[in-house]
Amino acid sequence: MNSADSISADSDRRMVILTDGHSNPLTAKTACSVLRYCQSEVIAVLDTTATGQTAEQLLGVGGTIPVIADLDSAPNAKTLLIGIAPPGGKIPEHWRPIIMSAIARGMNVLSGLHEFLAQDSEFATAAVTAGTELIDVRHNDEHEVANRSGLRSDCLRILTIGQDCCVGKMVVSIELTRDLIARRHRAKFVATGQTGILIAGDGCPIDCVVSDFISGAVEKQILANQEHDILCIEGQGSLAHPRYSAVTLGLLHGSIPHGMVLCYEAGRKTVHGMPDIDLASLAVLKAAYESAANLMMPSQIIGIAMNSRLLSAAAAEEERNRVRDEFQLPVCDVFRHGPAELSEAVLKLKQRIQRR
Amino acid sequence: MNSADSISADSDRRMVILTDGHSNPLTAKTACSVLRYCQSEVIAVLDTTATGQTAEQLLGVGGTIPVIADLDSAPNAKTLLIGIAPPGGKIPEHWRPIIMSAIARGMNVLSGLHEFLAQDSEFATAAVTAGTELIDVRHNDEHEVANRSGLRSDCLRILTIGQDCCVGKMVVSIELTRDLIARRHRAKFVATGQTGILIAGDGCPIDCVVSDFISGAVEKQILANQEHDILCIEGQGSLAHPRYSAVTLGLLHGSIPHGMVLCYEAGRKTVHGMPDIDLASLAVLKAAYESAANLMMPSQIIGIAMNSRLLSAAAAEEERNRVRDEFQLPVCDVFRHGPAELSEAVLKLKQRIQRR
Repeated sequence: MNSADSISADSDRRMVILTDGHSNPLTAKTACSVLRYCQSEVIAVLDTTATGQTAEQLLGVGGTIPVIADLDSAPNAKTLLIGIAPPGGKIPEHWRPIIMSAIARGMNVLSGLHEFLAQDSEFATAAVTAGTELIDVRHNDEHEVANRSGLRSDCLRILTIGQDCCVGKMVVSIELTRDLIARRHRAKFVATGQTGILIAGDGCPIDCVVSDFISGAVEKQILANQEHDILCIEGQGSLAHPRYSAVTLGLLHGSIPHGMVLCYEAGRKTVHGMPDIDLASLAVLKAAYESAANLMMPSQIIGIAMNSRLLSAAAAEEERNRVRDEFQLPVCDVFRHGPAELSEAVLKLKQRIQRR
Repeated sequence: MNSADSISADSDRRMVILTDGHSNPLTAKTACSVLRYCQSEVIAVLDTTATGQTAEQLLGVGGTIPVIADLDSAPNAKTLLIGIAPPGGKIPEHWRPIIMSAIARGMNVLSGLHEFLAQDSEFATAAVTAGTELIDVRHNDEHEVANRSGLRSDCLRILTIGQDCCVGKMVVSIELTRDLIARRHRAKFVATGQTGILIAGDGCPIDCVVSDFISGAVEKQILANQEHDILCIEGQGSLAHPRYSAVTLGLLHGSIPHGMVLCYEAGRKTVHGMPDIDLASLAVLKAAYESAANLMMPSQIIGIAMNSRLLSAAAAEEERNRVRDEFQLPVCDVFRHGPAELSEAVLKLKQRIQRR
């Protein structure tokens, strides 16, 4: 841990984020998340079409970090980060010379794309020559099963879980971790998806692991981080998602959390990517997660994180009260209200477990 | 379908099963299952240490199929099947010349090992020269998500589920399929593990699929087999297994079964491979499977398959009555009692669904 509120394992990456020609917040989601959470590690954004602007002007986040036209403008940069997640996962053709020039300068290249840099023979050969690293965070070779041994009872495990995909589980885990660190607890964000890994600098891309080894891969992340008092583990998918429920259960049973935070997006009615399928209700999902978790060990949902981006302030307040009444649990939008209520629920659970 | 009681997609494989020097029923489990269910496709067992015996004498199954010393004794053979599943998944060194000679004769080689034949450069080169196939049934390149479209309501899906791993889910699915075929229903065994695939000649090795794509891979198997009236889908793992629950849920949500058959081994107390962890009770698992399945669509457990191999006939009868009383469901050991009660439960469910 490099600073009091850092969630990153390595703060000396000195990144240039490449978004050239693709700098809109949807395509450049990766860039935006890294700018939000690793701002001090970012030297510049590279987009030849927007030189002279700030990252904030270009992408809505990142403050005064400059947008530059070439790597000559960032002589101290150490890492080039591929800042987009395009459909199909392919690198735009006109980025190849930029990536080659980064490698030639001795920069590492960091990517969360499905198409691996290290399997591109031109990049791979250049990297060997230059002695730099091509880091594909989605690549993994996990092949060990869970053993359920060595887990420490004084390291609290909190997993974010969801009503659906893409409701903000990563953001909730990060905001919670930062708040707990600010309260002087030794908390750690455990990343399980490519953007989380780019932010944290470590973790495991759980949805790319062979299915026999998901729980084992998660357990390995837990065992590697137990010097912390609290682990905030990034959830994936949903137990009720027709496509991704296996990933969700592997993560739940591999991390065997003491407590869970249920995340949802207010107003969403159908499954992400499957508009013909209705979402199961929060009540159904709460029961499903708690009974699945309790097949392994006692666990409960300790709070609800509402993503209220589609609601007005008044509507968000109404929704928050409705859900609080229904579940008798802390409810908040971590951006709109801050994560304090969730942090307090985590700390209460920690005390309760210590007293046992 | 080649004959009335065949569960195999292709009955012209004309196999020699290689178990040379490893012919005990535990190591040669694959050989035994193939001898049990594909007897008419097997020409011989190859074991130089037991020439002159029958398969039945050597392995306890396979009738008068001869044990031979070399491939010259089986000139019409078309396929060499690797008949063992050794720990570590490696081919015994002294088998290499036997495999090379099979390839040189133009035989295909069929394997369920973790170590792929096709990635062995000596085998691969020889196969190209001879124009034969190296078939690694564990190999897959599944990369499509489930879409939940095109599923036919007149094709009944029955999934075997388990209290644990290795309780006999494959055997129950096969015995049920054969019994339904004998009753003149168009039933099909859908294999999801390597031994099942070796027997059926098709299927998907679901525990080797990347976790994002499990449900998609299962759905593909369903869509490919809907010309049948009843699909008996081979289950894997257990929802309560700390290592493999993700595989189990992916299979459950990918196949969205109309009905499930709960399999268990009488007398087993702890999780397979994890002797420190107690098994969850059948009642807990019944509730867990039904609530997980019902997140997708209405589904229920229609019968219980008891593996009573550790019990005397009297103890098995007592156990059967106890479980019948507890769950008010058909209960049988498919070997000891035959699968009739389960078949009847499947056909009742089929009628009930057709009437809707």
